[in-house]
Amino acid sequence: MADLLVVGSVALDSVETPFGRVEEVLGGSATYFSYAASFFTKVRLVAVIGRDFPGAHLDLLRQRGVDLSGLQVADGSSFRWVGEYGYDLNEAKTLDTQLGVFADFRPSLPAHFRASPFLFLANIDPDLQRDVLRQVDRPRLAALDTMNFWIQGRREALGRVLAEVDAVVVNDAEARMLTGEPNLIRAALTILGFGPRTVVVKRGEYGVLMATDGRFFFAPAFPIESVFDPTGAGDSFAGGFMGVVAGAGTVDEATLRRAIVYGSVMASFTVEDFSLNRLTRLTEAEIQERFGAFQEMTRFER
Amino acid sequence: MADLLVVGSVALDSVETPFGRVEEVLGGSATYFSYAASFFTKVRLVAVIGRDFPGAHLDLLRQRGVDLSGLQVADGSSFRWVGEYGYDLNEAKTLDTQLGVFADFRPSLPAHFRASPFLFLANIDPDLQRDVLRQVDRPRLAALDTMNFWIQGRREALGRVLAEVDAVVVNDAEARMLTGEPNLIRAALTILGFGPRTVVVKRGEYGVLMATDGRFFFAPAFPIESVFDPTGAGDSFAGGFMGVVAGAGTVDEATLRRAIVYGSVMASFTVEDFSLNRLTRLTEAEIQERFGAFQEMTRFER
Repeated sequence: MADLLVVGSVALDSVETPFGRVEEVLGGSATYFSYAASFFTKVRLVAVIGRDFPGAHLDLLRQRGVDLSGLQVADGSSFRWVGEYGYDLNEAKTLDTQLGVFADFRPSLPAHFRASPFLFLANIDPDLQRDVLRQVDRPRLAALDTMNFWIQGRREALGRVLAEVDAVVVNDAEARMLTGEPNLIRAALTILGFGPRTVVVKRGEYGVLMATDGRFFFAPAFPIESVFDPTGAGDSFAGGFMGVVAGAGTVDEATLRRAIVYGSVMASFTVEDFSLNRLTRLTEAEIQERFGAFQEMTRFER
Repeated sequence: MADLLVVGSVALDSVETPFGRVEEVLGGSATYFSYAASFFTKVRLVAVIGRDFPGAHLDLLRQRGVDLSGLQVADGSSFRWVGEYGYDLNEAKTLDTQLGVFADFRPSLPAHFRASPFLFLANIDPDLQRDVLRQVDRPRLAALDTMNFWIQGRREALGRVLAEVDAVVVNDAEARMLTGEPNLIRAALTILGFGPRTVVVKRGEYGVLMATDGRFFFAPAFPIESVFDPTGAGDSFAGGFMGVVAGAGTVDEATLRRAIVYGSVMASFTVEDFSLNRLTRLTEAEIQERFGAFQEMTRFER
């Protein structure tokens, strides 16, 4: 089991879905990522919060053994996001974003984080992602996520950091935007041409595709009749994925594939409730049972 | 190996894609279905053509051993379809449809077709589909396809025939339209409530899902960088699917799953060229090789 470092956001989310609404609950990319990954490996978190951030939220992460010594507490307000989902639940409509202290976030790694063999750069400014890469000893696997905002506004900076990571985790719309390729297979192969050896494309209800050295792997999404709140699904996926890889300590194809499926398992739980509510009730046995369900749903013989 | 009967259309297609155009080439649901199925079992075809239909087209089907004794030749013009695809190649834009003799098509089964243990009712008027069911001895598996035109215009008639078949093969848009459910998992389960024991939902580039007795199976689509012409992909899938089931002669879960993958294999070849051009060059070795590629793309271990 190897240490997994994540740099991203810790936030307060207010979300409305057709099934209800919540105010200022625990959210943020690094939060979902850390919590999901904590089932598989030791996690270190780097992020920033304001002094208004509820301590009980942090206790949830501490209870999972997440090392919070890289969590900066700054003067000002915590990052707040307000969003809603319609009945198709496919895409969040952002109603308000208050960056607060996140606007001036400069990741600074505690000395004992610098040797982190596995690194995930969640969705932050690509120049900050590159700055984190400068602060760590060469990890065994460095991966990044990004979003349309950086793809459109910081294309060159994003290109530079893409050339320096081993893996990219994006959704299908981002993959198409990043490459200008409507065909997702070509988009994935084009991203490999930017530098990474592995690209993972999240396709929502259609599951995940991974391309590594030109080989493809496809995993479905868990069939869910009622997605309750999709917030955090992608970050939970990434956390499960990277957590399993770091837990194994190796980056061979079999490990990456197992990690894709565990990532899909974690995402499938996250969407069953608001915030991290479902994850905080989750047992190891439930994770293993759902992994078995994925095997059962995809098995066929000649 | 058991006989497989298909009732549908045999047509002349004119198609334009970003990669080229063809005029009055061999098309039609029963055509693609029969040709794809012929690699796996003995096929019987019921359809209607006009006296203008080129004999060479029929020779292609005869060479594959397709029994054409149910092919009616009527006074009038053959069914003609003119369509085009844009760069995303996801949906055909129909430019012209000339039903010709297909407008008065009344399927009439030759006596030796009445005992057909496997039956596929391709996309025709649901009352005609039901009429065919009246003409056959109870088959081991009767399946049907349909389309938005019948879902919107002939909902009640479609409901009647749905209650009498064992399996339904539709695409994702049709499944949603048929049920009013935006969630595809709920849509599939709702269709099972209409009567069939098995529902197969084609999701284009996202592959196929099958629900049988509430169990799900997911298969990806073969990753293709350049779809040349998607015309006939769904019918080729259905042909491969039903062909494998009929070839096995049984309808157990393992056979259905293997059939889904062979169906996906056949569709992946069809889209590589116009009309049936790729299928006419296809070898048994290529089919088996691509089936192996599907196994490789989906395999994972705990």
